[in-house]
Amino acid sequence: MTTLLILDLVGTFVFALSGAIAGIKKRLDLFGVLVISFAAGNAGGITRDILIGAVPPGAISNWMYIVVSMFAGLVIFFYSSFIHRHKNFILIFDGAGLALFAVTGTQKALTFGLNPLAAALLGMLTGIGGGIVRDLLINEIPTVLRAELYAVAALAGSFIVVAGYELNFHPATMSIIGAFTCFAIRFMAIRRGWKLPIADIGNES
Amino acid sequence: MTTLLILDLVGTFVFALSGAIAGIKKRLDLFGVLVISFAAGNAGGITRDILIGAVPPGAISNWMYIVVSMFAGLVIFFYSSFIHRHKNFILIFDGAGLALFAVTGTQKALTFGLNPLAAALLGMLTGIGGGIVRDLLINEIPTVLRAELYAVAALAGSFIVVAGYELNFHPATMSIIGAFTCFAIRFMAIRRGWKLPIADIGNES
Amino acid sequence: MTTLLILDLVGTFVFALSGAIAGIKKRLDLFGVLVISFAAGNAGGITRDILIGAVPPGAISNWMYIVVSMFAGLVIFFYSSFIHRHKNFILIFDGAGLALFAVTGTQKALTFGLNPLAAALLGMLTGIGGGIVRDLLINEIPTVLRAELYAVAALAGSFIVVAGYELNFHPATMSIIGAFTCFAIRFMAIRRGWKLPIADIGNES
Repeated sequence: MTTLLILDLVGTFVFALSGAIAGIKKRLDLFGVLVISFAAGNAGGITRDILIGAVPPGAISNWMYIVVSMFAGLVIFFYSSFIHRHKNFILIFDGAGLALFAVTGTQKALTFGLNPLAAALLGMLTGIGGGIVRDLLINEIPTVLRAELYAVAALAGSFIVVAGYELNFHPATMSIIGAFTCFAIRFMAIRRGWKLPIADIGNES
Repeated sequence: MTTLLILDLVGTFVFALSGAIAGIKKRLDLFGVLVISFAAGNAGGITRDILIGAVPPGAISNWMYIVVSMFAGLVIFFYSSFIHRHKNFILIFDGAGLALFAVTGTQKALTFGLNPLAAALLGMLTGIGGGIVRDLLINEIPTVLRAELYAVAALAGSFIVVAGYELNFHPATMSIIGAFTCFAIRFMAIRRGWKLPIADIGNES
Repeated sequence: MTTLLILDLVGTFVFALSGAIAGIKKRLDLFGVLVISFAAGNAGGITRDILIGAVPPGAISNWMYIVVSMFAGLVIFFYSSFIHRHKNFILIFDGAGLALFAVTGTQKALTFGLNPLAAALLGMLTGIGGGIVRDLLINEIPTVLRAELYAVAALAGSFIVVAGYELNFHPATMSIIGAFTCFAIRFMAIRRGWKLPIADIGNES
């Protein structure tokens, strides 16, 4: 088991936690919670794999992604009070998952021969896709489209990986720098309340 | 035309009926109703086929799936009173469709070389995918994530098929047992009101 | 750069405009607006490409689609008053985009060997897919399922292309006729308020 796989599974676990929390808030039953856990933890990677032609996606063919997602769902289901007492803890892990997925998603897209811009966007999509599907399933506008520099942080990390690839820098080093940059942007945005501007065309929906 | 294809088309027809009913309730026009009919009847199978790399999906390349879906939509559109008078009838057919899709979806995934756990999950996804997309299109939280043992029944049927495959039992026999088990679980869950537990973290959404 | 690509990019630009407008109405931030712009402009083509096995989809691998989508999002974000003053202008462009995507989507599906009925449906899907994903992301029932002859217009254009293909007519000529027919149906439907019938089963959702 490679370091990359371990880190990817950590990201899956954290995002699956967020899915389980969302499902429980909407009062889904145990199975519904597990389905949303799996979707939140793996939809980003599955979408990336479908788009680059890597089927069946790793999240489907490797049983570890499934087991990790289910485990996260069960943890939240039976120990939901834990979440209430450790909200900051979860936010930090969520930022770490985002950073990781952005970097590994970009690398996988580059490996499959996509151009730099597409690879960076697919890295971002890997990071934010799980949260989007999670929110669609519970019938809400995806928070990742509104949260503090969420997608921006993912994109920053992805671009650093792509830049390193183009300049023939050492991949692992650039991945660490990219992941750290993504995490730092997200972390600071939460602490300081940084937000992107909102336009106004005068009529509320 | 094989028996399998006939049974698959029956499942498509029943799920397409459920899609048409949902579209009409939301007051979509005739074409919107037909689009949701097609989505409800085929989204599960299409998603499975994309994930295992079987493109174009059978539901797209075989015109019979399209015709059957359209026919179901038209039946509901022009004879919607029929549905009101035969609600139990529809629930029974829906359970039969779920059972069928779970079993055929699992078999197709196994044929494409997926591992047992992935095949069982894809079988379940084939069964519940149409209902999920149907409900997303009409802007509701998917009922299959909350209905009485819906996904659980599908998964039970899928696991029986997978177990038979691993143990080299006769595929057709195991498919019948799997489909029957799925249908029986769902049927009993509706009659007895069986539900999975719901967690509570104290705050309503 | 072929004429076809230019026309395709024009369609992407117009649909991306509609996505940006939707995102701004929902008060998403700049990045959320750009994500919806990209989704609205490209989801139809991406879905078609996934279904016919043309991965990575052109909208991902060709940077021009990404740049055009971002540009449309930025234009709306910073000059949203323009949209208010030119609503009819936008509707006309939207009709043109629909016509174009229906025709190019059908041609691409035929090129990949799909049967006529499937090719026509994929052409329609290329035209309406972006609007569906846009509306799902902002948590509304897709307007393309309810708008005046929207999907019908797309399907009419697609069928003309398919008919020409089957009859060995000149492809470019049939494409122009198909696109013009689609645009004319949509244009007249808006002006005259043409709508398809709505069924009623007696209970509002």
